[in-house]
Amino acid sequence: MKTETTLKRGFASDNNAPVHPEIMKAMLAVNEGHTIAYGDDPYTEVATEKIRLLFGKDVCVYLVFTGTAANVLNLAAATHPWQSVVCAETSHIHEDECGAPEKFTGCKLLPVQTDDGKLTPESIATQLYGFNFEHHSQPRIISITQSTELGTVYTPQEIKAITDLAHNKELVVHVDGARIANAAAFLDISFKEMISDTGIDLLSFGGTKNGMMYGEAVVFLNTSLSENFKYIRKQGMQLASKMRYIAVQFDAYLTDDLWLHNARHANRMAHLLAEKAARIDGIKITRKVEANGVFAKIPKEIIHALQKEFFFYVWDENASVVRWMASWDTTEEDVDRFVSAIQNLLSDL
Amino acid sequence: MKTETTLKRGFASDNNAPVHPEIMKAMLAVNEGHTIAYGDDPYTEVATEKIRLLFGKDVCVYLVFTGTAANVLNLAAATHPWQSVVCAETSHIHEDECGAPEKFTGCKLLPVQTDDGKLTPESIATQLYGFNFEHHSQPRIISITQSTELGTVYTPQEIKAITDLAHNKELVVHVDGARIANAAAFLDISFKEMISDTGIDLLSFGGTKNGMMYGEAVVFLNTSLSENFKYIRKQGMQLASKMRYIAVQFDAYLTDDLWLHNARHANRMAHLLAEKAARIDGIKITRKVEANGVFAKIPKEIIHALQKEFFFYVWDENASVVRWMASWDTTEEDVDRFVSAIQNLLSDL
Amino acid sequence: MKTETTLKRGFASDNNAPVHPEIMKAMLAVNEGHTIAYGDDPYTEVATEKIRLLFGKDVCVYLVFTGTAANVLNLAAATHPWQSVVCAETSHIHEDECGAPEKFTGCKLLPVQTDDGKLTPESIATQLYGFNFEHHSQPRIISITQSTELGTVYTPQEIKAITDLAHNKELVVHVDGARIANAAAFLDISFKEMISDTGIDLLSFGGTKNGMMYGEAVVFLNTSLSENFKYIRKQGMQLASKMRYIAVQFDAYLTDDLWLHNARHANRMAHLLAEKAARIDGIKITRKVEANGVFAKIPKEIIHALQKEFFFYVWDENASVVRWMASWDTTEEDVDRFVSAIQNLLSDL
Amino acid sequence: MKTETTLKRGFASDNNAPVHPEIMKAMLAVNEGHTIAYGDDPYTEVATEKIRLLFGKDVCVYLVFTGTAANVLNLAAATHPWQSVVCAETSHIHEDECGAPEKFTGCKLLPVQTDDGKLTPESIATQLYGFNFEHHSQPRIISITQSTELGTVYTPQEIKAITDLAHNKELVVHVDGARIANAAAFLDISFKEMISDTGIDLLSFGGTKNGMMYGEAVVFLNTSLSENFKYIRKQGMQLASKMRYIAVQFDAYLTDDLWLHNARHANRMAHLLAEKAARIDGIKITRKVEANGVFAKIPKEIIHALQKEFFFYVWDENASVVRWMASWDTTEEDVDRFVSAIQNLLSDL
Repeated sequence: MKTETTLKRGFASDNNAPVHPEIMKAMLAVNEGHTIAYGDDPYTEVATEKIRLLFGKDVCVYLVFTGTAANVLNLAAATHPWQSVVCAETSHIHEDECGAPEKFTGCKLLPVQTDDGKLTPESIATQLYGFNFEHHSQPRIISITQSTELGTVYTPQEIKAITDLAHNKELVVHVDGARIANAAAFLDISFKEMISDTGIDLLSFGGTKNGMMYGEAVVFLNTSLSENFKYIRKQGMQLASKMRYIAVQFDAYLTDDLWLHNARHANRMAHLLAEKAARIDGIKITRKVEANGVFAKIPKEIIHALQKEFFFYVWDENASVVRWMASWDTTEEDVDRFVSAIQNLLSDL
Repeated sequence: MKTETTLKRGFASDNNAPVHPEIMKAMLAVNEGHTIAYGDDPYTEVATEKIRLLFGKDVCVYLVFTGTAANVLNLAAATHPWQSVVCAETSHIHEDECGAPEKFTGCKLLPVQTDDGKLTPESIATQLYGFNFEHHSQPRIISITQSTELGTVYTPQEIKAITDLAHNKELVVHVDGARIANAAAFLDISFKEMISDTGIDLLSFGGTKNGMMYGEAVVFLNTSLSENFKYIRKQGMQLASKMRYIAVQFDAYLTDDLWLHNARHANRMAHLLAEKAARIDGIKITRKVEANGVFAKIPKEIIHALQKEFFFYVWDENASVVRWMASWDTTEEDVDRFVSAIQNLLSDL
Repeated sequence: MKTETTLKRGFASDNNAPVHPEIMKAMLAVNEGHTIAYGDDPYTEVATEKIRLLFGKDVCVYLVFTGTAANVLNLAAATHPWQSVVCAETSHIHEDECGAPEKFTGCKLLPVQTDDGKLTPESIATQLYGFNFEHHSQPRIISITQSTELGTVYTPQEIKAITDLAHNKELVVHVDGARIANAAAFLDISFKEMISDTGIDLLSFGGTKNGMMYGEAVVFLNTSLSENFKYIRKQGMQLASKMRYIAVQFDAYLTDDLWLHNARHANRMAHLLAEKAARIDGIKITRKVEANGVFAKIPKEIIHALQKEFFFYVWDENASVVRWMASWDTTEEDVDRFVSAIQNLLSDL
Repeated sequence: MKTETTLKRGFASDNNAPVHPEIMKAMLAVNEGHTIAYGDDPYTEVATEKIRLLFGKDVCVYLVFTGTAANVLNLAAATHPWQSVVCAETSHIHEDECGAPEKFTGCKLLPVQTDDGKLTPESIATQLYGFNFEHHSQPRIISITQSTELGTVYTPQEIKAITDLAHNKELVVHVDGARIANAAAFLDISFKEMISDTGIDLLSFGGTKNGMMYGEAVVFLNTSLSENFKYIRKQGMQLASKMRYIAVQFDAYLTDDLWLHNARHANRMAHLLAEKAARIDGIKITRKVEANGVFAKIPKEIIHALQKEFFFYVWDENASVVRWMASWDTTEEDVDRFVSAIQNLLSDL
């Protein structure tokens, strides 16, 4: 099975990376004996307590399988179907979840154009009208992604400006944190500073993209919204029977700052790749690199050949822009080999 | 973490058991290098091919996380919201999925009373009317569970009688196979004989309850119904990013008949427990034991004390009936210790 | 257009009757000038105030188009999708709304077998379990039909017994009142006595089946449940633009007890028909006649010929039971002609 | 009841107008005798046949209550929940239906910015990507409004360009025709030329805004999409019991070109109002007037006082733009009185 294909390394996605050995070890360590299924077990208690501690306040935590589910169920917990969710046009919930938010919540999504994947109070405000008018879907949630799908990161001040706007209008703010660790690593601040202190209400706290096998946490900073969540998770088909195996992944992920080491490393590799690639004639880094994503304009002619050696995705075919993601297991050697490959292909043109 | 509680063995559920070592080994073995995410990888191809081979015909296979999801998405693939699903009153889709089938499919479930958890052409027929009458939800699927929630098993002849009825009326038949391995072990027949040759259209092929960590397969015997399933799975929040880890579990599960060994063992332990318990004065086995579940009427007074030593669930509080499930890791020693505990508690009465 | 077919009178349904002239007159009377659309008009205020007065307490009233919508939106207002609705197996919401309740609310319906279309605390109690258990749809509403689909009527004492049970369990009780006028006429009591004083929470107050053209009222006795209803009605596609024409129908319907005269008349005609038919050899009235429906076992051989002269529906083909509905415009002559037709057909056998 | 308020005339909406006398007369004329309920009656057959004839080809026609329902159920008939609908940002389905399309269909709506409420092949094309990629909602329907919410009208050539694009991509095109009569009157062409010959697949054919009391027709030009519509209509709570009263409205509406007279009149009044208002200093008509809507920038100071005398809505508060709708019953005197009122208020500034 270890064909050339399966072992081919690349910059396609942090989802293509394997599971961090420490996390795998933790799963092995609990693989004996019986444990109550569905989350009423001591492993889950330990893991959720560790997550709670990150936020320095009373929060409610529920574990689910996927990032899409964390987002969708989180939105469902805080909405009625006649409400709407303001989000960036490039957000995962709008672009990459096949309409799961609309299907499960019944809500309308209101996509907003942005330059860099980040909403602002001004761009959000364009969607905040029609309150109390029954013909109009009632704005209820502002959803931001941290770090964004374009590799950018909101500062705490930027987040605070959004939550202030939201709370003034009795809206709540959700963070899609599939790559929140990369944002924390970039900003060099705690989750308490980034999330709790800025007034965020709902958080999808990601694990899979930063070294876990599967598992994300739905975190209610605004605990009043979690009241019925156990039913929402079950009806949403996201209640794991053998929950201990998600729980111990989070336990290991949050032990000795493994999450932070992984995220810092991925970010560093992205910055390194961007730096080295930027020096190549014909390659242009199109966005500021903040978290672990690099966007580059490269000659159309080399894309296909380069993809053969290293996985990565084309982001905008017309503009010849590609996306390169670094992950916890990207090595400097990977970067160097990749940069060399680019240079070789360019010199063959 | 290895507290007395977490290691307490019991007969609560096959979901309380750990992961079979061979399966864990397989997950470890692929834990290096990059692999395309979301199922377009060679591991998934191998696993789904192995599943396809079980059925001796062209089938379509999709991997998901949970049994509830396998059922619900399977039903969704074959229905419109204005249709209905006939099922046993005791079926998991009616009793234990918190309304996930109704929420996701929009369909009506039509629960039918049974003696033993098994539908019959006669009991099904009571719900088959109102065809073409737009006021009435149109019957579309008959869903059976194999083995049933009451530990019973349909014979191939019984299944065939149901699919014949269904196909005559242009309905399709779904099998909730969360414990299908236990049924195959009990009947001592192949999946081809039990499922393909009896005309089943849709199958939720379970893994988690028989030694896997997570992962179920949605199998389309009636391949025309699978056309849009990739979108349904994604919108249903059940597309795994790091799919290789589900895939290799199935690979190991289907290698050297591991699935069959596990299921036979669990069944044998259930039969052993039933036999030994039946010999105790004051204990009455209330249902024929076929797969890996045992239902027993035991004195109310001992239930609580017994549960303290061994996990298990009360099935019917008024009737003082309890359910004991054996699993792949149940040992004869577990059975003996459990039977002794019962005897000790009874003698203390 | 006035073909023999369209003018053929019968006992098929109170929906086949025309609009009462007083109601038509009221619609004509407001057919001039401009009125604010969507219900913010003085006609709607007058009509809803008249409805409020019927209940002798503070209630919230919203007008919609159809009985199915009144039921479904009423249920939606009081439920989350992970909850369930207990109802009679013969209830309109279970049998005759093509799954609209499940589709719009996401909830599970729990149909209960009855002898006479009426739920009892005992039969309801069989469905009230699994509280707080996230695997199980949480019982939330008990829905009864008054008068029932089988022509029977709950006494206030019977209703009170159900609301007591419900409120003890923190459930609410909904009444499908598509034919509530017929029940009030039969019991000879006010809506206050039947509905408010018995503790009902939610009512679908029907108009169409008793002389209106279209229009039903959703009445919240439990006003806390109405908070978001304006959005639910709009998203449910039931907000009428030219609302004045529904409003004035209700106004006329509730003026000078028109509703009561119509209902009494329909009931009287049903009783008369039942009495006369019962005297015929070979005809058996199978249910006690209370409201405006008559169920009769008649010889299979005459059904088709009889239907050719008078519309009516077969209720149970195997048992040769038919349903005859009287309406506000049924005449004694209609009854006599119908009875004669039966006699003639029988004598031809 | 005929208070000053209720009879106050205005330019708020064509929904504020009464029912045309010919239509009311038709309703009265059928108000006797029994008719089969739910649409299986000769009146409905006549009405739908008349609608069919408008399109010069085989079409399927279903009557419903409201415009929102016509749109939503029409979209539902042609979509799966994992698909998307491209529409103008100003479209009724996006702005004014409280999320009913998302709730009922499960689909994503993709709002597109426009200058004049009209989509173009270019603006639509920005949303047509991600085909066959399961992470992305699959584009399925392009929905246009004719005449638009901004009072503009698509030419047949413009429509044809859109249907060509759509059909090349295997999409279908829906027309929200709440005001389609006004478009036909403006273009001076038949529905066949505007809709059938341009390749439209789905049409919501409006009646209420042009003189009817209630009732819209769902028209399937692409008849293969109508296969299950009777169930969708019922489950969508839009099957009228006393259907004859919708049917005869359409019958009268389509007799002697009543629809066209009404629409021409409304358009003429809008053009007249625009011309006269444009001559007033301080008033600016902001959009080309094509159908029956007029958009004007007027001094903020006079808005409130003017609304006291004549109903109308503010369209854009910041820009001080208001919307004036003419209807079938608007008179030249209404226009003159309104223009005088504006002049008086302006001279008082």
